[in-house]
Amino acid sequence: MILKNCKYIITQDKERSVLKDLDILIEGKEIKRIGKLLNQSDEIIDCSDKIIIPGFTNAHAHAGMTIFRGLYDDDELFDWLRKINHLEEKLSYDLVYSGAKLSIMEMLSKGIVAFIDTYFFPEATILASHEYGIRLVSGRVLEGSNLKNRMEENDVLIKKQDELFKVVADPYAIYANSEENLREIMDYAKKRNLRINMHAAETRHEVFDCYQKNKKYVIEYLDSIGFLQDSILAHCGWITSNEINILKERNATVVHNPISNMKLASHAFFPFSNYKEKEVCIALGTDSAASNNSLNLFDEMKTMALLNKNNHWDASLVKAQDTLDSATLNGAKATGFNNGSIEEGKLADLFAINAKEIELQPLNDKNIISNLVYSFNSPVEFTMINGNIVFRKEMLKQWQEEADKISQKINLKILTFGKDL
Amino acid sequence: MILKNCKYIITQDKERSVLKDLDILIEGKEIKRIGKLLNQSDEIIDCSDKIIIPGFTNAHAHAGMTIFRGLYDDDELFDWLRKINHLEEKLSYDLVYSGAKLSIMEMLSKGIVAFIDTYFFPEATILASHEYGIRLVSGRVLEGSNLKNRMEENDVLIKKQDELFKVVADPYAIYANSEENLREIMDYAKKRNLRINMHAAETRHEVFDCYQKNKKYVIEYLDSIGFLQDSILAHCGWITSNEINILKERNATVVHNPISNMKLASHAFFPFSNYKEKEVCIALGTDSAASNNSLNLFDEMKTMALLNKNNHWDASLVKAQDTLDSATLNGAKATGFNNGSIEEGKLADLFAINAKEIELQPLNDKNIISNLVYSFNSPVEFTMINGNIVFRKEMLKQWQEEADKISQKINLKILTFGKDL
Repeated sequence: MILKNCKYIITQDKERSVLKDLDILIEGKEIKRIGKLLNQSDEIIDCSDKIIIPGFTNAHAHAGMTIFRGLYDDDELFDWLRKINHLEEKLSYDLVYSGAKLSIMEMLSKGIVAFIDTYFFPEATILASHEYGIRLVSGRVLEGSNLKNRMEENDVLIKKQDELFKVVADPYAIYANSEENLREIMDYAKKRNLRINMHAAETRHEVFDCYQKNKKYVIEYLDSIGFLQDSILAHCGWITSNEINILKERNATVVHNPISNMKLASHAFFPFSNYKEKEVCIALGTDSAASNNSLNLFDEMKTMALLNKNNHWDASLVKAQDTLDSATLNGAKATGFNNGSIEEGKLADLFAINAKEIELQPLNDKNIISNLVYSFNSPVEFTMINGNIVFRKEMLKQWQEEADKISQKINLKILTFGKDL
Repeated sequence: MILKNCKYIITQDKERSVLKDLDILIEGKEIKRIGKLLNQSDEIIDCSDKIIIPGFTNAHAHAGMTIFRGLYDDDELFDWLRKINHLEEKLSYDLVYSGAKLSIMEMLSKGIVAFIDTYFFPEATILASHEYGIRLVSGRVLEGSNLKNRMEENDVLIKKQDELFKVVADPYAIYANSEENLREIMDYAKKRNLRINMHAAETRHEVFDCYQKNKKYVIEYLDSIGFLQDSILAHCGWITSNEINILKERNATVVHNPISNMKLASHAFFPFSNYKEKEVCIALGTDSAASNNSLNLFDEMKTMALLNKNNHWDASLVKAQDTLDSATLNGAKATGFNNGSIEEGKLADLFAINAKEIELQPLNDKNIISNLVYSFNSPVEFTMINGNIVFRKEMLKQWQEEADKISQKINLKILTFGKDL
């Protein structure tokens, strides 16, 4: 397949080159060549009015939770959690499957090609991901009194691994497990060569409790039991300078979720300037649609810039390019998939937007990255994963009908559960 | 015209009623009746899968500045201003007209029916507004050594007033005029019965200078020369409690511009809780596309909630409904147009969105306001102003071609000016 005459290609290569009026040759699942090519392919897509962008990674999600979108919004954090947890008692495989389908349709229509997910019934999310052809990194949450069972369930997921799906070891958060459990999980993960994915240093409360109990801050504590090497850590908003050094040493990826953290008022001050100074890898996540409430990394990039500029009183601290790196390259580092940039030899995970969208104008070589991050606000034209086009704008109408049917099914169940809240 | 079987009508009436499966009869420029109506009209629009929402007011804009979108983003505030001001020296009627057209197309496609604008060559913005049928409140900026000339130019605009266009007296900001000038402007405005529209208490710098010079904070100072009654004041982020009381007494409207303020890092802490406690009218503005960079009040509503929840460490402080009130009712209070809610006797200023958009699902009676504010993220179906449909989704393609042509014209001029920056 050839993407012909691409108006702009945002490569995200080492030099962050933006190419103009070139073609992209895709063979199988890979980007084979970029340049002025002959029409050496059966399938040619005219991209003369399109901007081609590396596919985004949503590095922290709870796709199944989209069934709770918009319920109990604007409640105080712990009140909201109590109500959501009450609803979760009635959760089923079918509901998680429905939520995951809604999430995946939304993500694909916004250029997201991979997501890292934590939730109940991960098999439901895995099935939905395979159906739509999106990449997924997930695992059974390893917690509670039946830790051995959870690990066996996770082993079953390991057998389902393929080029689109990877398993992690996910202890959820330090407060979800005893230290004995955490050490068992670490042992389990090492034996199977699984990376750790978990929440860390999300709230002041969590840090306070950890310090009272262990005389260590959250990241220091996790390091003391060997958890951090190559780990994926969501939030990390309540962090000391020493912990930032540790995160760098251990090659951890921090997943910033600015919208969810602002909406739940759970972060006072994400220390972006310190992270940037130490060159810690910051990926971007949406968290769940119950606390965001959209699954859109364009929104997330813009808010990442706004929040951290505002917090630091420094308009020049976060660049549009920083946020684009987080959504692409840094997300790819988190998942370990060979995507996140448009270069020869990389996986053909990319999407196209219409260069003529009104909110992008005037568009030129000087403002293209700014306009992608700060003003683009439309559905994408198509999304490609592993060399396959898995979403086209023309499918939107059909997906909306599908989403509407799923919505009716969810409403029947959720609104009945929630009657007493 | 009848909007038939509207799936939901977000009335924004006193009770904030959300109606289901009813019709809206529009006669001339007014909403005549809401209910179960016979097909007593020539033109019937099926709205059985649509949500009908009162048109939004963008209460602080600089539409012409869209020509600078994305240039010098992420620069420090005063560096950014210096560069933009340099470009503005080469400004022309044509460039402002081009910028205004881009802005208006974007705003109409996002449900905005009216905007309050401050910029050079206001005649260009007035012309563009008339061409597209959007409501406008504006005036010649009253400042500088030729104040008398500026006032005469504003008098010319007064003659252009009609049901879509109103003139204000706009001294820009206190730092743009001497006290003598400000007193003359107040005198001028009173004689012509014009409301004041201006920037106020936008930056720490401005407040510091004002206090040094006058031993009064900005709002206290403006009050001392009689400026505040029924005024429209953009930003007001650097405010004392006493000033909030004064704003309430004087029936002023504060225009909150959360995205622009965060992007330029010019507000540390907008005192939302105090404003809310005193029931000061807070409208919403986008500011310019050079500091936002979109003109989209859905974005602005969400960010208003996020910023103020985050600043106050209180997830329950700002409700989705508060932000919707700001975009509709409070904006209408600022302009004085009889719109902002869907009620019998109000102007037919409204827009429709597709209730089946993926990001709105699951949609139900409990989450509809939340989902509009926190997750809706698509072009609207149609926008109606004064009983006329001025935008339909089907026109998007044609408008994109128009926007692309305008973009090329702007690029030719702007990139030449900016070469030396």
